[in-house]
Amino acid sequence: MEHLKKLPFTAVEVCGGFWANRQKLNREATIWAVRDRFEDTGRFAALDFENVPGLHFFWDSDVAKWLESAAYIVAKTPDDALQAELDSAVDKIEAHQDPNGYYNIYHTVIEPDNRFKNRDHHELYCLGHLIEAAVAIFEATGSDRLINVLDRYIDYVIERFCVKGDTGFKTPGHEEIELALYKLNAVRPDEKYTKLAKFFLDHRHEDSLPADHWCNDSYYQSHLPVRRQTTAEGHSVRANYLYSGMADEAAAENDEEMFEACKALFNDMALKKAYVTGGMGSSHMGEAFTVAYDLPNDTAYAETCASIAAAMFANRMKDLDPDSKYADLVETEMYNGILSGVSLDGKSFFYENPLEINLADHGRHVSVRGDDRLPITERKEVFDCSCCPPNLTRFIASIGDYMISYDDERVFIHQYIDGEAVVNGALITLETAYPSSGLVRLNVAGGKGKTLYLRIPGWCEHFTLNAPYEMKRGYTAVALTDDVVELELEFEMKVRFVTADPRVRHTAGKVAVAYGPLVYCAEGKDNAAMLWDLALDTRCEPDVVYADYFGAPEITLKAFAHDENDVRALYLPLKRDEKQKTVPVRLIPYYAFANRGASDMRVWFRYR
Amino acid sequence: MEHLKKLPFTAVEVCGGFWANRQKLNREATIWAVRDRFEDTGRFAALDFENVPGLHFFWDSDVAKWLESAAYIVAKTPDDALQAELDSAVDKIEAHQDPNGYYNIYHTVIEPDNRFKNRDHHELYCLGHLIEAAVAIFEATGSDRLINVLDRYIDYVIERFCVKGDTGFKTPGHEEIELALYKLNAVRPDEKYTKLAKFFLDHRHEDSLPADHWCNDSYYQSHLPVRRQTTAEGHSVRANYLYSGMADEAAAENDEEMFEACKALFNDMALKKAYVTGGMGSSHMGEAFTVAYDLPNDTAYAETCASIAAAMFANRMKDLDPDSKYADLVETEMYNGILSGVSLDGKSFFYENPLEINLADHGRHVSVRGDDRLPITERKEVFDCSCCPPNLTRFIASIGDYMISYDDERVFIHQYIDGEAVVNGALITLETAYPSSGLVRLNVAGGKGKTLYLRIPGWCEHFTLNAPYEMKRGYTAVALTDDVVELELEFEMKVRFVTADPRVRHTAGKVAVAYGPLVYCAEGKDNAAMLWDLALDTRCEPDVVYADYFGAPEITLKAFAHDENDVRALYLPLKRDEKQKTVPVRLIPYYAFANRGASDMRVWFRYR
Repeated sequence: MEHLKKLPFTAVEVCGGFWANRQKLNREATIWAVRDRFEDTGRFAALDFENVPGLHFFWDSDVAKWLESAAYIVAKTPDDALQAELDSAVDKIEAHQDPNGYYNIYHTVIEPDNRFKNRDHHELYCLGHLIEAAVAIFEATGSDRLINVLDRYIDYVIERFCVKGDTGFKTPGHEEIELALYKLNAVRPDEKYTKLAKFFLDHRHEDSLPADHWCNDSYYQSHLPVRRQTTAEGHSVRANYLYSGMADEAAAENDEEMFEACKALFNDMALKKAYVTGGMGSSHMGEAFTVAYDLPNDTAYAETCASIAAAMFANRMKDLDPDSKYADLVETEMYNGILSGVSLDGKSFFYENPLEINLADHGRHVSVRGDDRLPITERKEVFDCSCCPPNLTRFIASIGDYMISYDDERVFIHQYIDGEAVVNGALITLETAYPSSGLVRLNVAGGKGKTLYLRIPGWCEHFTLNAPYEMKRGYTAVALTDDVVELELEFEMKVRFVTADPRVRHTAGKVAVAYGPLVYCAEGKDNAAMLWDLALDTRCEPDVVYADYFGAPEITLKAFAHDENDVRALYLPLKRDEKQKTVPVRLIPYYAFANRGASDMRVWFRYR
Repeated sequence: MEHLKKLPFTAVEVCGGFWANRQKLNREATIWAVRDRFEDTGRFAALDFENVPGLHFFWDSDVAKWLESAAYIVAKTPDDALQAELDSAVDKIEAHQDPNGYYNIYHTVIEPDNRFKNRDHHELYCLGHLIEAAVAIFEATGSDRLINVLDRYIDYVIERFCVKGDTGFKTPGHEEIELALYKLNAVRPDEKYTKLAKFFLDHRHEDSLPADHWCNDSYYQSHLPVRRQTTAEGHSVRANYLYSGMADEAAAENDEEMFEACKALFNDMALKKAYVTGGMGSSHMGEAFTVAYDLPNDTAYAETCASIAAAMFANRMKDLDPDSKYADLVETEMYNGILSGVSLDGKSFFYENPLEINLADHGRHVSVRGDDRLPITERKEVFDCSCCPPNLTRFIASIGDYMISYDDERVFIHQYIDGEAVVNGALITLETAYPSSGLVRLNVAGGKGKTLYLRIPGWCEHFTLNAPYEMKRGYTAVALTDDVVELELEFEMKVRFVTADPRVRHTAGKVAVAYGPLVYCAEGKDNAAMLWDLALDTRCEPDVVYADYFGAPEITLKAFAHDENDVRALYLPLKRDEKQKTVPVRLIPYYAFANRGASDMRVWFRYR
């Protein structure tokens, strides 16, 4: 196991290009849109410990992720209004903390007698998100007020779970507390934090579920001791939060057994259970992973939060096991499975991210009783379960976290984000229009004697680099021999046709279209033909044109299609010499689907 | 509208070949297997008007269909035990009839105060099936005891529905009474029967459903006056029972408007909503038709009863509108969608008939909560809702009904069943091993001066006939110029690849394999490869071998398949020159699937 160091997001400036635009939208539109919806639904009013209609035990976590997002934003772009929100929220949390340290709005206002009785009630999940918010606020503003509040709460948790052992469970129903405690330990080291995290990891499988419980142990990843888990199971957000905590434990304790489990879990997830968009968790039942290679497109659950959680896990693994496959998955999530969760105007969201929409099915499914389950087709401004919107705001605001890691001899560039960073004394400047362009210009000042590792994306078949290099597990290792080194790295960008492992039933005989890290889709509103009938002409000359509306290129291909009017019977003998018409197919980045109203949509196509 | 006459099943002898085997199995195994299960579940005990656990308002109809089946069997093969069952049942029905004529076990034993209050309670559906049983018993044995019982019940129905009008509805929830009344009228003509049938047809759309009703009007085909209906909607068994009654009305009243509606409904159903197996009703929600071209294979509902009902409707239409498309659909149902409902040992059944089974999905679907819906994968001996097994026994026992119709100048052979029949003075003998062979030998004695119409199946591209003929709407018209005419008709039998209308999303780029009227499927247990990965080599030389176990040929083709072990990543660039291995694919008749335990199964394949 290696131990690359994380570069604090404060050390990274996102300067221009794709992510600067996205951060601007996040800062100017999304953070306020989410705030307004949280205000409307009572999530902020609940901070006053009022019995707000609909008050839910997970509301604390929604607000916490929003506070974390706001902290990331003010750290980079001071904003009095946001700062005032942060201060006010911390005031209220501080004021309403129980004398014994406990803090959860629902379990104080509605069910004070049921604290820590039910693993499904998300108290420790909420604490975990509050800790992440507290750490972000501390890093952004230097204020440790919220950390101090939560330190007292953590003491209470230790007393109840580890000393008295009088709680209803030892297995937090929704993991998050584990990774949060390691994050807190990183800014305010205290053995009690890591011991508590390890307590939850080590005892995770020990509670028994009642026979009539609504779900099984796998749902919670408590079916086996965590170190013996080798397959990604159950609720896919919970799973990846757990795995993130496990990776943190592996790093903190130099725990090789845990590290091996993390590698196995990552491989199972990334090589057998990930959509081409990075979508994780193919079934809405349990919002869960199912079995290997079970990746239906139209009923894909692929929750936005699960993609974020997978990026969090992969981002930890890259520092323990510097292989490009981890940052490749992060990249797939960044540009596809995560980004599809927010609209182009930054104000509405997808919780689920299907890879295929057939509107006729939706008509049919509601026509009789509507009890079947297909993902929604239009983005919504708010969900009852609103975990994804503030998870998106924090992900986008802290995108710099994913870019660089290092140790004394090496600096790794994992993601090609236009920006600059001071890394262990060296100033790195990166200029790029990636992913619209494959050209990356790097300037490294003060890094002489170190080695620069540049990730070559898994999708890239050809690249050029104006310096000698060695390939090391998917990275080019470039010796920095001067005080200032100028590098030009160029990835060949072209329209790519991607096939899936033949064990994936749902994509047999089909290709997805990609360009750089971007996966593309066709929408019904851009294409007159029936999308399922299109057979892409993979020998045609694609037309690739940057589209400002999408913030990335759109692609036009040719495809073979039947003529709807040229059919005389439902079933006919196969005609092998049948002439099909050729039609143009307009493809847009997957992340931009459903921004222009409900439409048929498709990622996987037959081809010739 | 034409008015071909039905040949009573008593006039047709099934002598050998495919259907004689099936009738023997039906007579020796299935009829008793169903009886035993009905005994076990209390359906026969309920005839004593006992409050049997689980007593349901549709039980009368299950027993009625069993009695109808038994009558068809004893008519051809006298059997004391079956005859005793018939006599005993009629005794009990007679004994328990209300003095006012009413008869329904549930609504006498459990809810006597709620008679005719709820359209969903199937009282008239049960009466319809009792009428069909009574007519069968009368035709089989000459006994009109049950007819007389039901005649009194019908008088009571007329009084309540047409005279007093004090019932809770005028729209029977599950159609059946209409066609039954026309059937009764055929053996005991009485205007009151046809007037009552017409009453139900004419008033069908007039009741309003409460706003919070569990389903909509389309479910019951009561969304429009029946003569204005042009698309097949709602519960697919109910729909086809209604359409059968509508066709009966059109014939009885020479009602051209009704005839036009029937033609439109048939075309919509057969050309837009039928599976290649004849399966009808693609959604388990409402057991219903959905929208045109919506024919998912793995979640296909395709109830056995719906295929039987569609055959009943088509069989009526062929006599009003002698086009081969009607008997073509009957044939598709006979050899596929209906027959798949019963196991090869005659003792277990499918209610639903999917066209694709992926066992991994079933594992996944029960792994978390099991609330999603896929068809079962193994045949069952009994269902709570056990409409299909006795529907199968009556269909198979009365298969002769589908073979021949006639008028003064013409005799039509619609189905190629090895057998003989006296038709309007002519003796027709048909010898064939159809569908294992395409050769049909006909001997017609005493038909001189008439014209013999022989259906050329829609699937048949080439045939030979040793006599001059004219084609008339899919039939060869052969003038019978001698007292005895010997004909030899041979349909070219070959493995056929069938495509679906490109508007069917679920079969885009795929073919089904057929041989004569038989649709084929591959089962996992016969094929080592992943079924979804197979791309059939449509240029290969098929191997067709008669298989006694299936009672029809099995087919071996070649297909291209990936090597499961030759995969290094979940997503890879398309390699157009990739070499795939060639594997043999064993295909069996669709009707024989799931006779050897649960297995993956597939009808539609990619191809090259």
